[in-house]
Amino acid sequence: MTDDAAQDLPPTGLLPAGLIDLLPPEAEREAALVETLMAAFGAHGYERVKPPLLEFEDSLLAGSGAAVAEQTFRLMDPVSQRMMGLRADTTPQVARIAATRLGLQARPLRLCYAGQVLRVRGTQIAPERQLPQVGVELIGSAAAEADAEVAVVAAEALARAGVAGITLDISLPTMAGVLLDAAGLTGEALEARGIRPKAARAMVTALRQGIDRKDPVAVLTIAARAAPLAVDLAALLPELLRAAGPADAALAALAGLDLPPAARAIADNAAAVIAAIRARDPALRITLDPMEFRGFHYHTGVAFTVFGPGATGELGRGGRYRSLNEEPATGMSLYPDAVQRAAPPPPPRRRVFVPSGVPEPALAALRAEGFATVRALSAEDAPQALRCTHILRDGEATPLPAPELHRKD
Amino acid sequence: MTDDAAQDLPPTGLLPAGLIDLLPPEAEREAALVETLMAAFGAHGYERVKPPLLEFEDSLLAGSGAAVAEQTFRLMDPVSQRMMGLRADTTPQVARIAATRLGLQARPLRLCYAGQVLRVRGTQIAPERQLPQVGVELIGSAAAEADAEVAVVAAEALARAGVAGITLDISLPTMAGVLLDAAGLTGEALEARGIRPKAARAMVTALRQGIDRKDPVAVLTIAARAAPLAVDLAALLPELLRAAGPADAALAALAGLDLPPAARAIADNAAAVIAAIRARDPALRITLDPMEFRGFHYHTGVAFTVFGPGATGELGRGGRYRSLNEEPATGMSLYPDAVQRAAPPPPPRRRVFVPSGVPEPALAALRAEGFATVRALSAEDAPQALRCTHILRDGEATPLPAPELHRKD
Repeated sequence: MTDDAAQDLPPTGLLPAGLIDLLPPEAEREAALVETLMAAFGAHGYERVKPPLLEFEDSLLAGSGAAVAEQTFRLMDPVSQRMMGLRADTTPQVARIAATRLGLQARPLRLCYAGQVLRVRGTQIAPERQLPQVGVELIGSAAAEADAEVAVVAAEALARAGVAGITLDISLPTMAGVLLDAAGLTGEALEARGIRPKAARAMVTALRQGIDRKDPVAVLTIAARAAPLAVDLAALLPELLRAAGPADAALAALAGLDLPPAARAIADNAAAVIAAIRARDPALRITLDPMEFRGFHYHTGVAFTVFGPGATGELGRGGRYRSLNEEPATGMSLYPDAVQRAAPPPPPRRRVFVPSGVPEPALAALRAEGFATVRALSAEDAPQALRCTHILRDGEATPLPAPELHRKD
Repeated sequence: MTDDAAQDLPPTGLLPAGLIDLLPPEAEREAALVETLMAAFGAHGYERVKPPLLEFEDSLLAGSGAAVAEQTFRLMDPVSQRMMGLRADTTPQVARIAATRLGLQARPLRLCYAGQVLRVRGTQIAPERQLPQVGVELIGSAAAEADAEVAVVAAEALARAGVAGITLDISLPTMAGVLLDAAGLTGEALEARGIRPKAARAMVTALRQGIDRKDPVAVLTIAARAAPLAVDLAALLPELLRAAGPADAALAALAGLDLPPAARAIADNAAAVIAAIRARDPALRITLDPMEFRGFHYHTGVAFTVFGPGATGELGRGGRYRSLNEEPATGMSLYPDAVQRAAPPPPPRRRVFVPSGVPEPALAALRAEGFATVRALSAEDAPQALRCTHILRDGEATPLPAPELHRKD
């Protein structure tokens, strides 16, 4: 680029939509946060893996990767002439590693990861197209204690990052399907009762949409067309929707319902997971929403959403799923960008300006104390313009007055 | 992916050539190393920036980015319908940030970065197509002390990572061109003396290739065709090539030569940079190669190559260049993958197996001591198969015997 071309660059808006430069001090803060979260995972025995940013489309989009297929950038590999994808989610890659390279390692396998993910389009409320992602996967255990562990470890990681007062929201994404099955509201069951295939499929879709929208009237209106039902949905559904809330009350409400056996098993498992969480972290705030299943279509047991305190929003998601080779697995992803908004900012780094001629050994001690040492390179270097908070005088880091801010415009 | 499809995946060779999974403990080691290097940069006042992995091709490949244009993956941005590139080098992005978003910030500007770079093809000796890259850029100072600083900071970062005994190799990539200019061996000067343009261009190319190959006979044979020369290359060239070696001897050799003024200025600057390095880090081993310029075509002053001890090879590169808007700048990139090969491996993490029923508070102290705590999730969990080095007995982390290795095949 010539001088002129550089001057032609607009000062902002150089980057594609949703792709940003992180500047000081945010870039440092994000990196420190990621390493804090990863240190917590490591302290609980989760070992780091680092899959590549690019891999062949067919392995990247296998298993749970199919969920992000539309959001995955594709490009041609000139070496193999095959299509590659730029990962939009790291968890399918971790599942691949667990099933192949670590396929012979003893279970349960505890893995963690940190890295960037990219997606083709942002949304209006989340315009970013490059996001950091960190998480844990616990593969090879079907125990409720395994689900509890990923939740507890995520909560501890957030606490280490300074985020207190989180809420763990547990949903049971398989509950709705199990209830419809038990009530005879599947395509197959409806067809067996003489409803034409197309109409049966439309009814099932409408039923699931009604549950998605938490609209019991819509669900029961459709269900009435297939009456009599094998399960009294008209009694159960409003109760299940009402049960959503703090975990103990929700579990008590579930315990009082006359659930069909498959639904009872789901409720019992939720109770076991919550008990296992309480055993390890009695103070964690837990809510339970038995009928929520939106966005958790590949989960096979409990699903987790972690909410920050106040209105800081969703900090992470996870839950139980089947990994490759049908291995039982559970995991949690945390979103460092969201965690960063919920965490208190660290104190700004102390920077000490070092006039010319100070020998290097005098500075090592200051750096060990946490100072950044900023050396004068010319007589024009101005300590405050270089955002120094201190200056080295007589071997001591002496505080500088805060710079006066002049605005010309 | 179905169970069958997963089982069809080959256990290795799933990934495109040059793209690998880092497994435990290598992934953790690389991440720790990157943060160690970045902490050293931060301690010297370098502030972290994080440009995106993708940006528009025209800004990504501007300036020094042109050098990696052929190695840059391109893909279409469906939002803007413009071509984007996946970065093959982070330094052009840092230059862009310095010239635009940080264009009004006081100079000198000290920035550092860490991230992944991707390239279209690997080479036979370096097959990787995704590499971590970390580095520092010092923008807005033309002082020899600035060049010295990036070299000293890189050396300190490597020392923190456990790499001692590095060699800083300094080359002067502008020296050869300046000598040819002074000798009248430019296309323009040769044409002015009646040599046809095509022949003049061929001579200049051959002269530079001769210098590249350190072949004084070839250079002098071609130069003889343009005799008499304004500079006695026959005397100077062998001396300059012979001068390459430990810095003090090389500087003494340069001092004794009858260099044309522009070449003398380059030698004097090298002496000033080396003196400034010695003032800050007297123990650093420095070599100087005045006629080396291969691979440093955009450098405008000293160029640096950092070699590890023994045969560990190149650990980083850097040097002085003109940034966007012709700002004087200097910097250094380190290659964490190479540094990792040169650094001693950290001791393996101690892992303590925690039998069922141990309350959580008992474990926090162990984690604070550096243990990873690995909880039993079922009665089948075997401490040694889970690579635990210790087991919790009576509240104490008790060492386990190393597992016996059975091989059935």
